[in-house]
Amino acid sequence: MDRRTGLPIVGMVGAGQLARMTHQAATGLGQSLRILAVDPDESAALVGADVMIGSHASYDDLVRFATGCDVVTWDHEQVSGEHIRRLAAEGHTVLPGADALLFAQDKQRMRARIEELGIGVPEWAAVSTVDDVESFAEKHGWPVVLKVVSGGYDGRGVFVVSDVKTAQPIVRQGIPLLAERFTAMSSELAAVVARSPYGQLAVWPVVETVQRNGICVEVLAPAPGLDDGTALAAQQAAIRLAIELGVVGVLAVELFRTEDGLLVNELAMRPHNSAHWTIEGSRTSQFEQHLRAVLDYPLGDTRMTAPAVAMANVLGGPPEGPGIDERLHHLMARWPAAKVHLYGKQVRPGRKVGHVTVLGEAIGEVRATASAAAGYLAGTDPS
Amino acid sequence: MDRRTGLPIVGMVGAGQLARMTHQAATGLGQSLRILAVDPDESAALVGADVMIGSHASYDDLVRFATGCDVVTWDHEQVSGEHIRRLAAEGHTVLPGADALLFAQDKQRMRARIEELGIGVPEWAAVSTVDDVESFAEKHGWPVVLKVVSGGYDGRGVFVVSDVKTAQPIVRQGIPLLAERFTAMSSELAAVVARSPYGQLAVWPVVETVQRNGICVEVLAPAPGLDDGTALAAQQAAIRLAIELGVVGVLAVELFRTEDGLLVNELAMRPHNSAHWTIEGSRTSQFEQHLRAVLDYPLGDTRMTAPAVAMANVLGGPPEGPGIDERLHHLMARWPAAKVHLYGKQVRPGRKVGHVTVLGEAIGEVRATASAAAGYLAGTDPS
Repeated sequence: MDRRTGLPIVGMVGAGQLARMTHQAATGLGQSLRILAVDPDESAALVGADVMIGSHASYDDLVRFATGCDVVTWDHEQVSGEHIRRLAAEGHTVLPGADALLFAQDKQRMRARIEELGIGVPEWAAVSTVDDVESFAEKHGWPVVLKVVSGGYDGRGVFVVSDVKTAQPIVRQGIPLLAERFTAMSSELAAVVARSPYGQLAVWPVVETVQRNGICVEVLAPAPGLDDGTALAAQQAAIRLAIELGVVGVLAVELFRTEDGLLVNELAMRPHNSAHWTIEGSRTSQFEQHLRAVLDYPLGDTRMTAPAVAMANVLGGPPEGPGIDERLHHLMARWPAAKVHLYGKQVRPGRKVGHVTVLGEAIGEVRATASAAAGYLAGTDPS
Repeated sequence: MDRRTGLPIVGMVGAGQLARMTHQAATGLGQSLRILAVDPDESAALVGADVMIGSHASYDDLVRFATGCDVVTWDHEQVSGEHIRRLAAEGHTVLPGADALLFAQDKQRMRARIEELGIGVPEWAAVSTVDDVESFAEKHGWPVVLKVVSGGYDGRGVFVVSDVKTAQPIVRQGIPLLAERFTAMSSELAAVVARSPYGQLAVWPVVETVQRNGICVEVLAPAPGLDDGTALAAQQAAIRLAIELGVVGVLAVELFRTEDGLLVNELAMRPHNSAHWTIEGSRTSQFEQHLRAVLDYPLGDTRMTAPAVAMANVLGGPPEGPGIDERLHHLMARWPAAKVHLYGKQVRPGRKVGHVTVLGEAIGEVRATASAAAGYLAGTDPS
């Protein structure tokens, strides 16, 4: 509890753009997010008043950080379960807790648990040798998708291999891997839900996520052309997973839409790129909702503020030509309705340095605007 | 220019809730607002990363603060024109500048200038003796409104006097005063506009402001029952004043709607309480627009995001009963669509400690919800 304000203190471990945008939401709720940053130049550390420099990998730093927080939550999945358990055992409130986070940290445990619950996942097997990969391919065909069991994100740690020869160097690194059937899908969806300790649940409309090279480039809300039955099934899967896995806070469930129905691809237990559109596009943003959930406040209204919302990531281009400030001038002149979010990160090719959201009546139009504006800002699109 | 981000640095003198909400908007634009605070516990200082402690009344502090800023702007009107002129003369970009701000700082100069432009103001005269007040009342009738020429806000410095006897102690303080005819009005309006150095203008829909004891308690957007002609006249007056007074940034024009037409009551050259509703209720909030304006970025779309928006101020009640955190829980449970903004300020009777915004289809409904939620949060309303 902050004695100056009479309001709670939420600590977020990690200082990326998720913590940055959570601080914006915390400010509205009368709080100031406490942030654990590795470096003072990280995205959230540049804007937060209450920043501690330390490592999420050090238990000493974590416990020093947690002391005085009403609740500690996560900007990323890279905190060890053992450390989280120890924090909880010492009386700190850590949400989501280690038992839930495990399923966002370990893809093998996650897939096994989801199967157990009778929710679809792509066919998979743990693999540790090239022979394992080959026998998986004999059953399910090439190409095979190899994924690192933990630590992958944004397409890193995911390899599509078309034969034994390309699989070899990956398997031989000795990192725990799983093999997954290469799924023919019509689209990728995300169902995002928030759950409070009390058990309240609030789900946003299901969105389509558009990937390029394994990185999310666009999110379309609501998912275009999605029938009500499939949308409901996706929301129900997300709600069921939030309850069964004991998630508190925001849970993002990434799904493949296939001929055989919905298959869960990934889980994230924190605010997620697939719901950045909620800042302007929903009555309650995922950042505010995450705070409300971990504080056990009642959850906010998740209705959309416009019929169609598109979000496009700004993936930094080559550092040539006009700088980001000059590009921003042009963007604002050309697309006055585009809402820009810049994360204060140095531009590097392919790096997520911001996003653009556009609200409107028809998804085609808002998608085209968001995509053009984000591409222009990144310097990768000449339009 | 912030070398870490390649984006400009805006400095705001003053660390109240306006600076706090401007920091939230700056964060979205990839910036971190630089804040000059008198005290580290002030509203904006609690959440900003780049806070300098110093006095807006000290030129040394101001120049130390301005150094390294791309532009300096204001959270309040209490900086001396002389200091602002000196900062500009020494090469700092200060917006709005001293020549414009004068008309927000000195009510006598403001009224004289507005009359010169042929825009309506209530009948007024400078008064320095009780006899002056009496002869003003002979012409215009009792009661007479006495206002301090500079330094008043939120009803402070405004006195409605019904006879010579009640006027006496006010006049005898020797503060420069003006007398104003007590205006019979059907409602109070605000027309808010932003202007950039380039000369671009963007105006929001005209709103109705509801006052109690001289303090704004509610804002209704758009102003209910306002005919298009009057709305346009109010917007045109605001645009004309922004141009003629050389305002850069947000200009709020408070107006009386009377039988004789619109009369200008007050001017503010900064984000203003009458446009807090724009955070959720407009595609571009006044805080983002103020930043865009002072940075000479193109201005954003001012369209509304819903047909009706109501904002109610949270005016702190007696510090008894449940604390603000407990009240917030109940508010969220009862009104899930209410958007709460708390300023991190200690609750004191009558003090503005936050506001609540509600979006919807019909003004009656959103007004009732915003008012009930704000009253509940303040502890002044049992509902």
